[in-house]
Amino acid sequence: MPLTLLRISCPDRVGLLARLTNFIAYHGGNLLEVNQYTDPINKWFFARLAIDTKSLALDAAALRKAFEPLAADLQARWTLRESQQKMRIVILVSKMDHCLADLLWRWRSGELPVEIPLVLSNHEDLRPLVEREGLRFEAVAVTPETKTAAFERMDAIFSEARADLLVLARYMQVLPAEFCKAWQGRVINIHHSFLPSFAGANPYKRAYARGVKLIGATCHYATADLDAGPIIDQEVVRVEHYHTPDDLLRLGRDCERLALARGVRYHVEDRVLIHGNRSIVFRD
Amino acid sequence: MPLTLLRISCPDRVGLLARLTNFIAYHGGNLLEVNQYTDPINKWFFARLAIDTKSLALDAAALRKAFEPLAADLQARWTLRESQQKMRIVILVSKMDHCLADLLWRWRSGELPVEIPLVLSNHEDLRPLVEREGLRFEAVAVTPETKTAAFERMDAIFSEARADLLVLARYMQVLPAEFCKAWQGRVINIHHSFLPSFAGANPYKRAYARGVKLIGATCHYATADLDAGPIIDQEVVRVEHYHTPDDLLRLGRDCERLALARGVRYHVEDRVLIHGNRSIVFRD
Amino acid sequence: MPLTLLRISCPDRVGLLARLTNFIAYHGGNLLEVNQYTDPINKWFFARLAIDTKSLALDAAALRKAFEPLAADLQARWTLRESQQKMRIVILVSKMDHCLADLLWRWRSGELPVEIPLVLSNHEDLRPLVEREGLRFEAVAVTPETKTAAFERMDAIFSEARADLLVLARYMQVLPAEFCKAWQGRVINIHHSFLPSFAGANPYKRAYARGVKLIGATCHYATADLDAGPIIDQEVVRVEHYHTPDDLLRLGRDCERLALARGVRYHVEDRVLIHGNRSIVFRD
Amino acid sequence: MPLTLLRISCPDRVGLLARLTNFIAYHGGNLLEVNQYTDPINKWFFARLAIDTKSLALDAAALRKAFEPLAADLQARWTLRESQQKMRIVILVSKMDHCLADLLWRWRSGELPVEIPLVLSNHEDLRPLVEREGLRFEAVAVTPETKTAAFERMDAIFSEARADLLVLARYMQVLPAEFCKAWQGRVINIHHSFLPSFAGANPYKRAYARGVKLIGATCHYATADLDAGPIIDQEVVRVEHYHTPDDLLRLGRDCERLALARGVRYHVEDRVLIHGNRSIVFRD
Repeated sequence: MPLTLLRISCPDRVGLLARLTNFIAYHGGNLLEVNQYTDPINKWFFARLAIDTKSLALDAAALRKAFEPLAADLQARWTLRESQQKMRIVILVSKMDHCLADLLWRWRSGELPVEIPLVLSNHEDLRPLVEREGLRFEAVAVTPETKTAAFERMDAIFSEARADLLVLARYMQVLPAEFCKAWQGRVINIHHSFLPSFAGANPYKRAYARGVKLIGATCHYATADLDAGPIIDQEVVRVEHYHTPDDLLRLGRDCERLALARGVRYHVEDRVLIHGNRSIVFRD
Repeated sequence: MPLTLLRISCPDRVGLLARLTNFIAYHGGNLLEVNQYTDPINKWFFARLAIDTKSLALDAAALRKAFEPLAADLQARWTLRESQQKMRIVILVSKMDHCLADLLWRWRSGELPVEIPLVLSNHEDLRPLVEREGLRFEAVAVTPETKTAAFERMDAIFSEARADLLVLARYMQVLPAEFCKAWQGRVINIHHSFLPSFAGANPYKRAYARGVKLIGATCHYATADLDAGPIIDQEVVRVEHYHTPDDLLRLGRDCERLALARGVRYHVEDRVLIHGNRSIVFRD
Repeated sequence: MPLTLLRISCPDRVGLLARLTNFIAYHGGNLLEVNQYTDPINKWFFARLAIDTKSLALDAAALRKAFEPLAADLQARWTLRESQQKMRIVILVSKMDHCLADLLWRWRSGELPVEIPLVLSNHEDLRPLVEREGLRFEAVAVTPETKTAAFERMDAIFSEARADLLVLARYMQVLPAEFCKAWQGRVINIHHSFLPSFAGANPYKRAYARGVKLIGATCHYATADLDAGPIIDQEVVRVEHYHTPDDLLRLGRDCERLALARGVRYHVEDRVLIHGNRSIVFRD
Repeated sequence: MPLTLLRISCPDRVGLLARLTNFIAYHGGNLLEVNQYTDPINKWFFARLAIDTKSLALDAAALRKAFEPLAADLQARWTLRESQQKMRIVILVSKMDHCLADLLWRWRSGELPVEIPLVLSNHEDLRPLVEREGLRFEAVAVTPETKTAAFERMDAIFSEARADLLVLARYMQVLPAEFCKAWQGRVINIHHSFLPSFAGANPYKRAYARGVKLIGATCHYATADLDAGPIIDQEVVRVEHYHTPDDLLRLGRDCERLALARGVRYHVEDRVLIHGNRSIVFRD
């Protein structure tokens, strides 16, 4: 069913939800799913309202216009869009294909409601996997010397492709701070540990050395401060003493695939709101 | 913080949440937590609204009165009460003490916000465990011959104790159909399997015989149809071939304690709404 | 590292493990992994011994010959083979591709150490997905009238392909009893519920109707008695009241993929021993 | 069934398990459970052998004597004891009672096969909870000034009580380095985070601030380097954005209770072997 999705956060006050639901009722909107949360510590209000598009008297553009005065009064950060307009995601990869193959399967089967204008890599290895799906593949090599230029070129490619979201599916390059800032809140990364444990390089080796009994993966928004951005989802799996570092790699791959797929799904369905370094996720 | 809790279910219609939130805003109520769900198949609306009691102009009794016309118009089933008025639960046990000990600990520590007017058993074994907590213990023996009379007596005890909820914490007697009907929606049972697997007697032995790799426990409302009532929560644990039926018993006990404690908690915080044989649980 | 794998089950007796390890030490074998289990109820002994192939003075054929007298004395059921000789698995599918795509990815990446001589389906739909991997695809239509002939033809195809294992990756045909018998212990199925709950058709719909809070998938050996064969592995995921039957389908797919992949992995690494209707699984 | 438990670790070599099982078979021992693991990286051998005590020709003391030459030849670290001789554990607590209450319940019900000569605290608060079980309670106050003397007194108490194991059940004092060294491998702690995340103070508050989607608990051996000792078991639970720091505390308590109970159980059943900073745990 086509949905119109309103996502909003603002300072809390009495009667907030009444004003929002009155606004929607006024325009004939039938609410199909309402998620609301008030942060009791920061006194902040968060909501996601899913409206039956066909019940609305206005289209999304007109509704946005109509909502502006109320939003301004509430000092709100908000988005309002129709689910039929699928988000456009660009997937970034290096040489490992497990997350990419998983996302492609979910896209192909219709489980993940997105458009994929292209997949980009700093290597050529995964071109066949992408092109056989009828998708565009771009390789942009990155070396210490060419890094700045490379990311400028990538930025141009993403903008030209009208990307709504970048998904780092085990892309093994640290993003420049500038780039992170420009795309803030629009880059999702998968880190192969249950953060904050083992931030940085080689988490599985370090997990083995530490002798942990659980390993995991973390899906989070990328920020200039490596592996420290708002967490969207995490997944863990129990491990035993007999698991070698290679076994952890194998078991971890399934965690990574699940956590990344869920995180991307939540984002493209407008289920995530960021507040400081925490993320409010209205899971489905 | 003292809360006023409105729990409501009714046929869905446009503008429902607006009417509810307007009603609360009209009386000055500040919403601290709103959970709402619309069943898209049955077109049914469910909500739980937690209001800051101190922000309200009316007390619970007056607010209930004020809400009646709206509720009638919506053909709603609803409750409205203050969290400070703790629910009164009676725990029923037989000889096994693991669920009882767990509930008593959660009550004593303040984690479970209830009053316990008494614990009742068909045996004397657990009297010391209960009385040392300063709680009343009643033993009502049940034999095939005395069953009807015994349950009539128990019914009287529960009514006299103004019980809001009966918790069957491994109480090993099948409740008479009459009794189930009289207490419908107010009796929570813990069954030692992940229902609908292994309904009925000896679930751990049957789980062993079937060679399952997961065992579990199910917290559900008791109905005349044994182990078939609405499920509130379930818990599972992985088992291996080397676990004997005794090991399953041991591992299952932890599942039972967790699932029962959560189910009771959800109920006494007005987080559960029953619709047919399904339960809507606004978890915390 | 190339391994020689001895898998054995027999009636328990004193000194059993000593005799086995002496035999292996006598032939120079260095044990890399030993799993042993004695069923205390049935007094039955189960073991898997993984030997460094290069440390052995004999090859697998000669070692099998040398082991025969001891095995006969122990009245053992056993297998002894080299891991470098990968098992040949045939995957059977109908129209749904999630389990197939997952197995193909694990095979392609080297995670699943098998040969895939062909994929067989009762429909043409998944031919492109298979052939683009450079694998053979065979379609054998099955109708009520042609069922017997169809399974005879399939049996011939599997034998000619020297299949060690058939993997039913959501193959939507009930296997004839004859066929099950002929391939006993060599057919792995994935059922989309946590058995014994919801055996048979439409488990997700029935799970929704029952209002369970956990759904799952079961990987088991196929037997003539539908969904009643020895269980190898199970996987569950928590669900909430707001999940529609379609959501259960989506969430269940991930359970199915994980449980099937693990079950197949355990089988092809000789980690599973069947005893009656239970399976001993020496997990890795 | 009374068991004789041999726990051993030593450098790996060909024929090791054969020599051990021959030794046991020679003395008539019937092996009921054998767990063996060879660390492929460090070339180290670990095993736990559970022998039916009644099948043995010698008692534990004589068997230990008989085993000494073999152990010396293997350069082994080993223990050999009878399960009927229950380990003596001393529980250390401060003011929080959830782990203590859980351990006491498991001990009282016979689930945890130990003797508890006493419970010790740096406060008086939990005395009633302990003494009503008929157990000895000792309070030893600890202040910065008296710390050295206090731990000397405690050491004397533990030795006089013939303690095999100290269990820190949320004991809120850092152990002196000297004390850790003297009791190395015989002190189990529960830390309220999934280590190495949030080592040190206030893990739940820091978990909230970081916005993680999983919290947990870690059962580990105490070492002078705080929260860095070998991990025995970990437990996690999923959390959502609406969980306050107080909710994390509540949810975490169940993780702590489960992880600590399992860790203690594994230790007192001789299922744990320490190697460097990793622990081999033959789980049951």
